[in-house]
Amino acid sequence: MPDREPGCYIGIDLGGFGVKAALSDVGGNILARHSIRTEKEKGPEHVVAGILKMVETLTRTAGVAGSSIRGIGIGAPGPLNTKRGVIIDAPNLKWKNVPFREMVSGELGVESVLENDANAAALGEWWKGAGRGVNSLVCITLGTGVGGGIIIDGEIWHGATDVAGELGHMTIEVDGRLCGCGRYGCLEAYASATAISARAAEKLEDGRESSLRSAVDGDPRRLTSRMVCEHAFAGDPLCGEVMAEAARYLGVGVANILNILNPEMVVLAGGVAQAGEILFRPMLEEARIRVFPQAVAQVRVVPAELGKDAGMIGAIGVIKRSMEGSLGD
Amino acid sequence: MPDREPGCYIGIDLGGFGVKAALSDVGGNILARHSIRTEKEKGPEHVVAGILKMVETLTRTAGVAGSSIRGIGIGAPGPLNTKRGVIIDAPNLKWKNVPFREMVSGELGVESVLENDANAAALGEWWKGAGRGVNSLVCITLGTGVGGGIIIDGEIWHGATDVAGELGHMTIEVDGRLCGCGRYGCLEAYASATAISARAAEKLEDGRESSLRSAVDGDPRRLTSRMVCEHAFAGDPLCGEVMAEAARYLGVGVANILNILNPEMVVLAGGVAQAGEILFRPMLEEARIRVFPQAVAQVRVVPAELGKDAGMIGAIGVIKRSMEGSLGD
Repeated sequence: MPDREPGCYIGIDLGGFGVKAALSDVGGNILARHSIRTEKEKGPEHVVAGILKMVETLTRTAGVAGSSIRGIGIGAPGPLNTKRGVIIDAPNLKWKNVPFREMVSGELGVESVLENDANAAALGEWWKGAGRGVNSLVCITLGTGVGGGIIIDGEIWHGATDVAGELGHMTIEVDGRLCGCGRYGCLEAYASATAISARAAEKLEDGRESSLRSAVDGDPRRLTSRMVCEHAFAGDPLCGEVMAEAARYLGVGVANILNILNPEMVVLAGGVAQAGEILFRPMLEEARIRVFPQAVAQVRVVPAELGKDAGMIGAIGVIKRSMEGSLGD
Repeated sequence: MPDREPGCYIGIDLGGFGVKAALSDVGGNILARHSIRTEKEKGPEHVVAGILKMVETLTRTAGVAGSSIRGIGIGAPGPLNTKRGVIIDAPNLKWKNVPFREMVSGELGVESVLENDANAAALGEWWKGAGRGVNSLVCITLGTGVGGGIIIDGEIWHGATDVAGELGHMTIEVDGRLCGCGRYGCLEAYASATAISARAAEKLEDGRESSLRSAVDGDPRRLTSRMVCEHAFAGDPLCGEVMAEAARYLGVGVANILNILNPEMVVLAGGVAQAGEILFRPMLEEARIRVFPQAVAQVRVVPAELGKDAGMIGAIGVIKRSMEGSLGD
């Protein structure tokens, strides 16, 4: 139910390929949504201009006045400085030291807040998704990379220098697989979409039989983690192995989070998390082995509920809380 | 300077071998201390009677009236239920479901609080030790086992079911060394005192040359981690290797904590942490490799300052905060 109070919020999810935006009532119920391509190579000014146009489209679609916008929340890839509102050095955007919050506020004439995209997604799931009502949760985003956000006592935990929640780069195998970050044995090197398709490609190159072979028409570059997952589901042994491996390592990562933080809930978000039982069952089996009974007895490890909206909704939550002091629950 | 306000607190550190107790003024300054053997096999009633006698000795030594005791903080090995004050199943004590807080309060007629020993040590270091003035810290206790405590915004983070901070059982090597907990590849299996002496014993059994050999008089059961550390310091190559290995794995564990929690400080406590540079230098080198520059740039990884008093002082902090609402800083 749209909230009757006047005013609205804008939530932005700034990604390497696309920018998504939503307009919500003050209760965080989405009234309109829009998206554009990032075209990051044209620079931050270009993206801010695109956001300005999106906001015009959103207010028109929702039938609200531009003046009713209370504020804008922006989720962006890190590392960033949330206090100063600066994107410090985002590999996904190839931008450095961009005062993005000020740029957006200046252009739109309203207050805005910048938040790490994975933190925003965690807050979104806590506020409106799988984590409604819990006190603490850890959200692991399994996409091209593996990211994370930590909610403690209902608040995003940023850490001392704004980089808490880099779950993908926890080491689970000291001399393990090479990760995209250049280090070895990171969770991301085993449980990201990239890792899943890479493992399947390696097994194909070893000459193994698989239904994947005809599906990619002999070109392993066509492989996606989604295909691996679908073929695993259809009974292909090679893909089954790859998914079981990824799930096992993910279970180790989840166990580490449970042993260290003992959160009430772990939410798995991102494309890979949509694999369902084929991922969740072996993941949970492995996690249970490695965790103290008292930590695992009551914890829930669940799929995200907001899908690709989590970041946008979380961004709305961040600006709402910044302006109203609470999320009203 | 002893505090002029009337009243005092008692802090207890209940261990598998010994029970330590201190009496402090209301500011947490220790005025008297005492210790006894636990004799856990005689049961919790026996230990409570021992505590009663210690408290009598402490008040006599400090020259204060028993009636001036405001409350008692108790640090005990977990897992426990801090809210209910119950020791649930402590392997170090071989006790199950002991309502220790009530037993102590009943016997002494004052309020008491039960806290996990590693959490108490973390709070002690935050309040009076290495972590004075920081907002967040993680304290890793490197003893027979590896434990931990997490301080966030100046408060102990207990987790959803009171088992947060089980840092020793984070997996850093999926199919790694067997840990005392029955699982594989836990940090404890590499960086505890037990692990260090076990590794040295293995290398001796392999027939390697070492100054340890004469020191243990041919009996590897006499080996201690302290000896390994001393011989490493004196230049023994075998011991140097063992310490370097332990330090490297500890660096991986520290890196995981930095990547996940990004605390302002990591405090290394317990006997192994007293190894100094021989441990800290390679540990930090390894951690730096595995952590995002933004997480490592400002973080301090430092030795504990309170030594064996950390748990007792932290227990005083826990009861003081419970009764006064704050630690007064």
